[in-house]
Amino acid sequence: MTIAEAEDKANVLVLGGGAVGTMAAYALEAGGRAKVTMVLRSNYDAVKKSGFSIDSIDHGQHNGWLPSRIRTTILDPTETDVQHYDFIVVTTKNIPDVPPTVSTLIKPAVTSDLCTIVLMQNGLNIEKPLLEAFPNNTILSGVQMIGASETAPGIVLHNEPDICKLGVFEAEGKGDELKLCDEQRARRFVEAYNACGRVDCRFDDNVRYTRWKKLLYNSSYNPVSAVLGMDVTRMRVYKHVIDDLVAPIMREIAAIAAADGVHLSEDLVRKLITIDKLDSWFMPSMGQDAGKGNFIEFENIVGEPMREAQRLGVPCPTLTTMYSILKGIQTKTKETRGLITPRVTDARPYRG
Amino acid sequence: MTIAEAEDKANVLVLGGGAVGTMAAYALEAGGRAKVTMVLRSNYDAVKKSGFSIDSIDHGQHNGWLPSRIRTTILDPTETDVQHYDFIVVTTKNIPDVPPTVSTLIKPAVTSDLCTIVLMQNGLNIEKPLLEAFPNNTILSGVQMIGASETAPGIVLHNEPDICKLGVFEAEGKGDELKLCDEQRARRFVEAYNACGRVDCRFDDNVRYTRWKKLLYNSSYNPVSAVLGMDVTRMRVYKHVIDDLVAPIMREIAAIAAADGVHLSEDLVRKLITIDKLDSWFMPSMGQDAGKGNFIEFENIVGEPMREAQRLGVPCPTLTTMYSILKGIQTKTKETRGLITPRVTDARPYRG
Repeated sequence: MTIAEAEDKANVLVLGGGAVGTMAAYALEAGGRAKVTMVLRSNYDAVKKSGFSIDSIDHGQHNGWLPSRIRTTILDPTETDVQHYDFIVVTTKNIPDVPPTVSTLIKPAVTSDLCTIVLMQNGLNIEKPLLEAFPNNTILSGVQMIGASETAPGIVLHNEPDICKLGVFEAEGKGDELKLCDEQRARRFVEAYNACGRVDCRFDDNVRYTRWKKLLYNSSYNPVSAVLGMDVTRMRVYKHVIDDLVAPIMREIAAIAAADGVHLSEDLVRKLITIDKLDSWFMPSMGQDAGKGNFIEFENIVGEPMREAQRLGVPCPTLTTMYSILKGIQTKTKETRGLITPRVTDARPYRG
Repeated sequence: MTIAEAEDKANVLVLGGGAVGTMAAYALEAGGRAKVTMVLRSNYDAVKKSGFSIDSIDHGQHNGWLPSRIRTTILDPTETDVQHYDFIVVTTKNIPDVPPTVSTLIKPAVTSDLCTIVLMQNGLNIEKPLLEAFPNNTILSGVQMIGASETAPGIVLHNEPDICKLGVFEAEGKGDELKLCDEQRARRFVEAYNACGRVDCRFDDNVRYTRWKKLLYNSSYNPVSAVLGMDVTRMRVYKHVIDDLVAPIMREIAAIAAADGVHLSEDLVRKLITIDKLDSWFMPSMGQDAGKGNFIEFENIVGEPMREAQRLGVPCPTLTTMYSILKGIQTKTKETRGLITPRVTDARPYRG
């Protein structure tokens, strides 16, 4: 490797040390085009001691793997030099209704306009707070189709291939030159991600389509799994759950997307209803989170499509009721976690 | 007491030995105009041994109380004589989607057309299967506003007064003479119930109105409590639960009732939203049942109003989504109780 090649390595900060963040970090390091710093929380001690144990359908078995650096906070107080990151990759859950927000979280690492922020997170309009907080930075959209889970701290099982679409969240009113710069940064990230030759990361020239398409599944199967505590196999065996909840929500999403200029065909809807292996007994992530008493990512996955529907005048009654119930579930979790306390004096007389 | 008076005692079978059934049995026996046989299940042994312990806002404290007879089944196989009951009072939960149905359950006790069946149960259209199964019997509607709970087997706390409306579920096409007979039987039951002088049981000449009115609360607060596992105080403190779920459902019920010819005013809706004491932390019965993993009474409380809406062409999107979720909860309970087993082979390809 020449010095020039070495200097060409992108300095990448990966936020979120779960399965998805770890596999992204692994792919980036394996390609040799990036030097990755991971910010870890709950699994820091385990990883510090023994590294990650990875069993990956794309990359094989690796015990004791570590990225270039691991940290517990974005800025390491023991280091005096403030790092410049070319890319800040956010793979944490996106829960804007529970502080801190993504913008607040990454702010210390956004040291200049040269930092590109990659949101590898689900949902609609997740870029809006970032574009507002960092109007001069490039914000990228990463949508992953990956099956990976952290079975114990630092132990990652990656059993469905890493397929990723990476594009630009374009701010309104940007000039052509800046747009070109955004795209170049996106393509640079795609190349760094693909350099390992074992993942399928593609430049996405239609981010809005990609996100709406992913919402078909995420806005329907996820909330139903969370509200009912039911896996996708049972939903399909107990057909009424598909007929009365999952399928109606998918069609509402397709209708909202259509009003937003994105065509999602009925064929696609029907394909996604049966996308999981029938005998997978798979619990969607929101169902897993609700079952564990974790906060759920419902605002960007259910709330934002619903608000788009309100803006565009599209009825979405099933989605709307689901949203209200998910909000109630989140409220209960906030209470359990001590973020709020129910006080009788907070209940105003009803004036609805 | 003269022989004539003694013979005038109504022979009453009370089905359901929970708090509501026990207080009904107590009021009937206390009035001296009825001889009550109670059919008990889970609390039979406790009651057989020590009687009921009753702490009642209407009737005071009574330890070791027993009705004239207690049984474990409708027909006692150790008795050779088949009893004729003037009134069969059903206070069990009404769960038509889980066998046996009320009709099947009471059939052995309906020995002649002279048996009057009193349905002290919530919900709409609960009389329809009974009118079909027993077309020549009188079917009465009992709607209770009572606060009572069985805190342990045979221990009943009755803390809100027993106010009851009792009327006739009229079958279509009945002649005036039979209608008069139905009403006389209803009035006889009201008199027997009121004879103790400590309850407020009134003849109800508008059963449909009474039932729709009760649904305002039952179709809204009950499902929300079941789906969210949340008490009414929290719903009101966390205002969005009222604004987005409880109040919309109440207004949908009012709209369906209006299409069915029953006017429920906006004032009434607003009154019912705040009917519970704010600091009651009260968990509605469906929420209690769901929390305990019991079957829920959702078909007549939510499903029937929804089907009326479909019949009458009234939109009720919130109620409809709630119904689908409650059905999913019931399905899970059926699986837990071993009534159904999810088999992958039962999932047909999606053809929705």
